[in-house]
Amino acid sequence: MSDLPRRVRINEEGPREGFQIERNPIPTARKIELIDALSLTGVPQIQVVSFVSPSAVPGMADAEQVVAGFTRRTGVIYTGLWLNEKGLLRALAANKLDIRGSLALTASERFLLRNQKRTPDEDLAAQHSLIAMYRAHEVPVVRAGIMAAFGCNFEGDVPLARVLGLVDQIRKLSATYGLRLETLSLADTMAWATPAAIRRVVGAVREAHPELRLSLHLHDTRGMGIANAYAGLQMGVDTFDAAVGGLGGCPFAAHAGAAGNVCTEDLVFMCHEMGIETGIDLDALIEAARLAEDIVGHPLPGSMMRGGTLDRLRAKARAAAEAAAQA
Amino acid sequence: MSDLPRRVRINEEGPREGFQIERNPIPTARKIELIDALSLTGVPQIQVVSFVSPSAVPGMADAEQVVAGFTRRTGVIYTGLWLNEKGLLRALAANKLDIRGSLALTASERFLLRNQKRTPDEDLAAQHSLIAMYRAHEVPVVRAGIMAAFGCNFEGDVPLARVLGLVDQIRKLSATYGLRLETLSLADTMAWATPAAIRRVVGAVREAHPELRLSLHLHDTRGMGIANAYAGLQMGVDTFDAAVGGLGGCPFAAHAGAAGNVCTEDLVFMCHEMGIETGIDLDALIEAARLAEDIVGHPLPGSMMRGGTLDRLRAKARAAAEAAAQA
Repeated sequence: MSDLPRRVRINEEGPREGFQIERNPIPTARKIELIDALSLTGVPQIQVVSFVSPSAVPGMADAEQVVAGFTRRTGVIYTGLWLNEKGLLRALAANKLDIRGSLALTASERFLLRNQKRTPDEDLAAQHSLIAMYRAHEVPVVRAGIMAAFGCNFEGDVPLARVLGLVDQIRKLSATYGLRLETLSLADTMAWATPAAIRRVVGAVREAHPELRLSLHLHDTRGMGIANAYAGLQMGVDTFDAAVGGLGGCPFAAHAGAAGNVCTEDLVFMCHEMGIETGIDLDALIEAARLAEDIVGHPLPGSMMRGGTLDRLRAKARAAAEAAAQA
Repeated sequence: MSDLPRRVRINEEGPREGFQIERNPIPTARKIELIDALSLTGVPQIQVVSFVSPSAVPGMADAEQVVAGFTRRTGVIYTGLWLNEKGLLRALAANKLDIRGSLALTASERFLLRNQKRTPDEDLAAQHSLIAMYRAHEVPVVRAGIMAAFGCNFEGDVPLARVLGLVDQIRKLSATYGLRLETLSLADTMAWATPAAIRRVVGAVREAHPELRLSLHLHDTRGMGIANAYAGLQMGVDTFDAAVGGLGGCPFAAHAGAAGNVCTEDLVFMCHEMGIETGIDLDALIEAARLAEDIVGHPLPGSMMRGGTLDRLRAKARAAAEAAAQA
């Protein structure tokens, strides 16, 4: 019927993507509470903080305290985000995270210029410097990403050829430096993707590089998150970034209630119902989503924490049928 | 790549599904305002009211006044809902709607017993009576539906064989009475469907009855609405019920903000971005969604009214590129 994977790997980004965007300050203890709750759900990887400038992102000023406070669980990979050597050094100094390097190129020149003040050539040069930095600190580079791979609010549609060109650049970097990339992430940074675009871009990248493991980073700003994830699953994609409760907001919508990242528990529900394993306890994850909503203090866009699982209804229906049979 | 239709037909059910479930009374004039706004979007069909018992559904007590008040636009089909002859007579007396008969069977025996106090045999007998009633009033029967076709909160999973059996019953009714059914609607009444289930059920019905035009009625209670619609599109389904803004709530979630029907403007956005025509002006539809939100007085689950269209961003990006080229 279709090429669905048997097992999907979720990279939970709620604590990082979610908390850094909230307007109101979130107490360090509550951030730790969510990370600890997520650790018990079976999710294999959690991005817990970003080590960025406290003046630029006040919500992440307590990154060191958050890292110091959460409890590591066996089998869970805990990652952080940084944008430069200063951030990496903070992450290393915290001495508790799984430090993994990543590269990122951007498919929109205008977005790159706006957000990082770089031309594409300068951005490529910056990747060489990044690799040198990771080598100096003996940090493996395991992930590479293409930002704005499906379109850009400032540049419009992104030609497929440009995405393929950037993947080629990443393959060349990888070959030059002998990197062992685990995944190539295609990021729908500004929520331009539809399922047809996911199929087109993932299909073209896969055809050109069949040995690359692809990951999708999806935003739900226009309500396409789960449908896009399904299109990815159909193309055999088995690794997804997601955020519990749909945390993450949308910096472009200027609206606290706007949908953020694709919602982890909705994605996990879809996978399980379609026979795809995630290793995650959906009930525990839904409880974590409710906790996240309580922590941010406003409704989050996730559906499953309101809609409820089907397994509970199935169990109730079975019990009712048995009771009726005995009566 | 896949079997997407070129054109999709939307049956807008927001005014009926949405308003009848709201806790607070909605002024008749505001219901009319939304219907009139929807009439100008290009949507081909709008279900405007239900003629049901005012004591059972107080929110629809003003059905006659709503029908009297809205302005009919050429090219739009205006339908109503009724559950018995009394309701049909009210709809006929209003003398302004496009009166079309429909049949409905239910794939969950327990749901049927709970909601309609009927066994499957009694429900089938009721369809014969319905057809007799429509004949007596010279009303064409153009639509048939299978309720709870993907699962039931009270019975659990619904076997595919049962759905296929009900479709056979409908085909027999159609042959016996010489009906000219335009569509067979598969309704995910309690939001049990996932994209894989949509493919399985639609595929099986299509294989058994290739000449039937299928329609999907989807709820978004568990966040699967748009993904399920996409799975339907991939199977060639070209007719969808939907509700502007995602109106419709969810009677089972006991939560005013819970997701209702699949959201019309999100579905239309997906179609247009994938090159599928709907005949609908997306900007006008988004304005109607904002109006619906204003009328009900609480946030509705639709995403596009917050996320915004891509065409506007494309136009801005083009203008910026032209300005840069001239500088």
